[in-house]
Amino acid sequence: MEYRKVGKWGLKVSELSLGTWVTFANQLDLENAKLLVKKAFESGVNFIDCAEAYASGMAEAMLGEILKYYKRSDWVISTKIFWGGSGPNEKGLSRKHLLEGTWASLKRLQLDYVDLLYCHRPDPEVPMEEIVWTMDQIVRSGLALYWGTSEWSAEQIEQAHQIAERYNCIPPIVEQPQYNLLVRERVEKEYLPLYEKYGMGLTTYSPLASGVLSGKYNKGIPEDSRLGRFEMIRKWMQERGILSEKTFAKLEKLQTVADQLGCTLAQLSIAWCLKNPRVSSVILGASKIEQFEENIKAIEVKEKLTDDVMKQIDQILSE
Amino acid sequence: MEYRKVGKWGLKVSELSLGTWVTFANQLDLENAKLLVKKAFESGVNFIDCAEAYASGMAEAMLGEILKYYKRSDWVISTKIFWGGSGPNEKGLSRKHLLEGTWASLKRLQLDYVDLLYCHRPDPEVPMEEIVWTMDQIVRSGLALYWGTSEWSAEQIEQAHQIAERYNCIPPIVEQPQYNLLVRERVEKEYLPLYEKYGMGLTTYSPLASGVLSGKYNKGIPEDSRLGRFEMIRKWMQERGILSEKTFAKLEKLQTVADQLGCTLAQLSIAWCLKNPRVSSVILGASKIEQFEENIKAIEVKEKLTDDVMKQIDQILSE
Amino acid sequence: MEYRKVGKWGLKVSELSLGTWVTFANQLDLENAKLLVKKAFESGVNFIDCAEAYASGMAEAMLGEILKYYKRSDWVISTKIFWGGSGPNEKGLSRKHLLEGTWASLKRLQLDYVDLLYCHRPDPEVPMEEIVWTMDQIVRSGLALYWGTSEWSAEQIEQAHQIAERYNCIPPIVEQPQYNLLVRERVEKEYLPLYEKYGMGLTTYSPLASGVLSGKYNKGIPEDSRLGRFEMIRKWMQERGILSEKTFAKLEKLQTVADQLGCTLAQLSIAWCLKNPRVSSVILGASKIEQFEENIKAIEVKEKLTDDVMKQIDQILSE
Amino acid sequence: MEYRKVGKWGLKVSELSLGTWVTFANQLDLENAKLLVKKAFESGVNFIDCAEAYASGMAEAMLGEILKYYKRSDWVISTKIFWGGSGPNEKGLSRKHLLEGTWASLKRLQLDYVDLLYCHRPDPEVPMEEIVWTMDQIVRSGLALYWGTSEWSAEQIEQAHQIAERYNCIPPIVEQPQYNLLVRERVEKEYLPLYEKYGMGLTTYSPLASGVLSGKYNKGIPEDSRLGRFEMIRKWMQERGILSEKTFAKLEKLQTVADQLGCTLAQLSIAWCLKNPRVSSVILGASKIEQFEENIKAIEVKEKLTDDVMKQIDQILSE
Repeated sequence: MEYRKVGKWGLKVSELSLGTWVTFANQLDLENAKLLVKKAFESGVNFIDCAEAYASGMAEAMLGEILKYYKRSDWVISTKIFWGGSGPNEKGLSRKHLLEGTWASLKRLQLDYVDLLYCHRPDPEVPMEEIVWTMDQIVRSGLALYWGTSEWSAEQIEQAHQIAERYNCIPPIVEQPQYNLLVRERVEKEYLPLYEKYGMGLTTYSPLASGVLSGKYNKGIPEDSRLGRFEMIRKWMQERGILSEKTFAKLEKLQTVADQLGCTLAQLSIAWCLKNPRVSSVILGASKIEQFEENIKAIEVKEKLTDDVMKQIDQILSE
Repeated sequence: MEYRKVGKWGLKVSELSLGTWVTFANQLDLENAKLLVKKAFESGVNFIDCAEAYASGMAEAMLGEILKYYKRSDWVISTKIFWGGSGPNEKGLSRKHLLEGTWASLKRLQLDYVDLLYCHRPDPEVPMEEIVWTMDQIVRSGLALYWGTSEWSAEQIEQAHQIAERYNCIPPIVEQPQYNLLVRERVEKEYLPLYEKYGMGLTTYSPLASGVLSGKYNKGIPEDSRLGRFEMIRKWMQERGILSEKTFAKLEKLQTVADQLGCTLAQLSIAWCLKNPRVSSVILGASKIEQFEENIKAIEVKEKLTDDVMKQIDQILSE
Repeated sequence: MEYRKVGKWGLKVSELSLGTWVTFANQLDLENAKLLVKKAFESGVNFIDCAEAYASGMAEAMLGEILKYYKRSDWVISTKIFWGGSGPNEKGLSRKHLLEGTWASLKRLQLDYVDLLYCHRPDPEVPMEEIVWTMDQIVRSGLALYWGTSEWSAEQIEQAHQIAERYNCIPPIVEQPQYNLLVRERVEKEYLPLYEKYGMGLTTYSPLASGVLSGKYNKGIPEDSRLGRFEMIRKWMQERGILSEKTFAKLEKLQTVADQLGCTLAQLSIAWCLKNPRVSSVILGASKIEQFEENIKAIEVKEKLTDDVMKQIDQILSE
Repeated sequence: MEYRKVGKWGLKVSELSLGTWVTFANQLDLENAKLLVKKAFESGVNFIDCAEAYASGMAEAMLGEILKYYKRSDWVISTKIFWGGSGPNEKGLSRKHLLEGTWASLKRLQLDYVDLLYCHRPDPEVPMEEIVWTMDQIVRSGLALYWGTSEWSAEQIEQAHQIAERYNCIPPIVEQPQYNLLVRERVEKEYLPLYEKYGMGLTTYSPLASGVLSGKYNKGIPEDSRLGRFEMIRKWMQERGILSEKTFAKLEKLQTVADQLGCTLAQLSIAWCLKNPRVSSVILGASKIEQFEENIKAIEVKEKLTDDVMKQIDQILSE
């Protein structure tokens, strides 16, 4: 396992990391989640990504139970604040919810601090000053060691840095966008000016595009699959034309490439994300330990993705 | 119930909120205050306004007892510092009283923090630097999430923002002025430059002008009424010519408008406040639960206040 | 008792206040100190001045025992840091001693914070940045509400303000110099530019010039008197020519003025200090309760010091 | 024992101090370490230097046990953060390791704060902003009173000061370099511009060049000696040509000087360090109490190092 710096900053995360979305306190009970974390730890994973929203806080509670058996400094633990409850002040990035959400997350996680605290989405209803002042306060008071953003536009991230500079606040160090063979725009184009200018790191999610890149939706969407269960994700993909015949045709060609390399399409997809040096860590979810064991082998596939293979993949995708 | 942002800031308050002045620990005992808070909560109210001065701290103590039965993040709780005791350092906005007052208020409220902390009046005896530095310290140390002012002049609020900008302090976000059909000057004229410039919100009190707009003083001031008991308020109104025959004549005309809309004069008056988009929340006091139930219906009256009706009201008031 | 603002700032102190130097844990045991504080409190005194150096910390310890019986906000309590022990890092104004000294003082005083924390002397061995950064940290972390200096030169105070302004630190608000009929230079000339510019307040000590102005040294220095016991003070006075025949001649003339006003020379001397509007509080020591009761009557004498009497006094002193 | 200021700053350290490297929890068990600290204390030593890396934290744990018997303000205790463990985030100067390392060190030391916290080496992988912001936070939150660097280049120290100035952070006050008769470059040339400009102090280690200047390696390196056991140090010296015949020839001449002064070569070497007024403290290690008692006599030798003797030494070294 390779450890990468989060952008230019001092924090180091394993190139593959463990997500808890959908799985923790949902598809995985405490016993299996424990085993999964153990497996990940033994494989060299040091970063686990969580959020107050995941399983309505139960993902954090489960993670908290598990982390008690580990040394704190061995882990990089993140959580994200945005959707904390149904009340008018229980969502978004107001100072009230950022602080109340963070306090509640840390209680559930049974931790004194998280390593990374993400603003889970942008919140145009809150002035950037309020957000940056509050995140700065959270970092300076030791509740989080670093802060970042998730799915913010380049313009919003730029604005956060300007406010931080103006008011002598600690700036965000990392973005958490979706990034995979089918969704590349933001990471490869929109964020381009930010990497050098601010040393921004990336922890990316959905390397398999919610399973599409595992090939399991090529022949329709099973009701009990992730896409079958989460209408919001399905719609988001449909609007972007991701769930189209055109995509499935490409997937078949990519499958051929995978076959030639002797790996699964999923492994190929994950390895492809790892090839981007801007990516600090690729977050893997797993509803079964076997699935995780399978996908983590993408590290070995990475070596096989020569310049030629990468070109071949680009050609398939741009057809 | 509509939830409005406090100016441009991230905090959201119900358009109607619950005041504790005069009523808590005075006209209302613990049992009835509990029922009133329950009623307000069920009606969608999320903001309760208090002050160290109300019932000499007993309003806070009563509120503290009641809040124990609720989830903290469901509420926006405010208190105000200015009149904390009779000693030379127990009033005003000195660093000593601001801090000692806040510590004492939080103890009585049994809370770790209030959402809003108001400077209950301006204090020309204390340099603005001392006030702003101290409020900034209170916010940054987590004793309050936001701070505001009450009955400050536009010039004083402007000065607070300039000092905050100069010393990199967190500025006030909200003013709490009196605002009703009979007292409009400050909100509609004096504060005008501040709304856009600083995104200032308003929580307004006395929507019924201490009962005058309920019509109950049209035929004199009963001894056991609010105006009968509080000489200070009565005098303030008399000096401004509010308790005049001219006013009572207007009230009779407004009563006709209310009759046409099928509501009480009180409901009309509260609804009229809500029509001003600068107002974040209108604070209602109530010495009886029935009165609160009656007045909260102003929300429905709001819809009936068409442009024509508003013009009609303005004409009556300007006669 | 009149309460005066400390310079332009929000804190208010009684014009006469209680010093603990020489007396607490020395000439006064706990029982008598308790009675003295009670007497002072009943007379309207709200400010007690202490220092880590007084009786090697025992003055603070005694004061701490006594204050337990009072409400905290009724008092303005000060202490001063400079001479904390014999070790190389137990004196002066280094960050190490300022913090360690303050922590130790608060423990002895059994308080969470003092109202005023003085730098008991200037310390040219420590950069002004180190002093101001540390005092700012002490105030912002709530260990003291305000800070000040004692026997600093105008130039040093000026420098502290410039550093505070440059690094966005909270500046000192008060100086504690010696001030009496025989020692006037600093207060009346040297500090002149500071009062308006920085709103500096003054708490002054030695209104009786260590007893000289009580007239008790006119015929020599008894061994068991303050001047008899403290060689340092005696020498300081001798060097300035205070203990001279010329002084004693003036004292006799001042005694005549006192006789005409129907008061003691001590009362006249204290009242004279109170006439200076720059003085926020005159600190009185007392080894006996009777002495305190006697001297506090200076407040009444103040009224008798008309412009004519003040001129008369000035003439006597300038002869 | 002379006490020297750390550069221009307020902290004072004994000119000779006690190092714990190699010895504590290694060559010395708790009983002997206790005796050594007692001896040092009685000799006037007030500064003990430690690091999280020494004996993998056990040096700190041992020191913590010993310090319980002393008054905190009598000591200047330092530790250093850089090598805290084998995990990817357990070394270097990232915010994560600086904070986690400091928290862990303070726990082992059973202290609330250290006086000096050193960045044990430069870390070019971490932006200087991250390092300075974090050290500033550690000082302002009271975990350390001052911070410094160890073996940083002049350029890196310069950069730290510029960042501190720009972001209103507390700057480093001290460097801890190697300094002895054989390694002089950094202290005497490279750091030259920093002393006046930033008032930088020096606590220097290896006054005997890991024993070379005791003369014990003149006839080869015994296996159980420091150089025999620590390959890293041996190599570092070999690369710089320190372990050469040329050196040993010089040592013999220096021995003659020592003989003339009636002291050991080790005492001469330590005394020579003390002659440099830039040096705040020379850190002595000792695996035996007798060795410490011997070396601390260097203080007396210091007087004998007249200008003539110093010139003589310089001539020998520059041959």
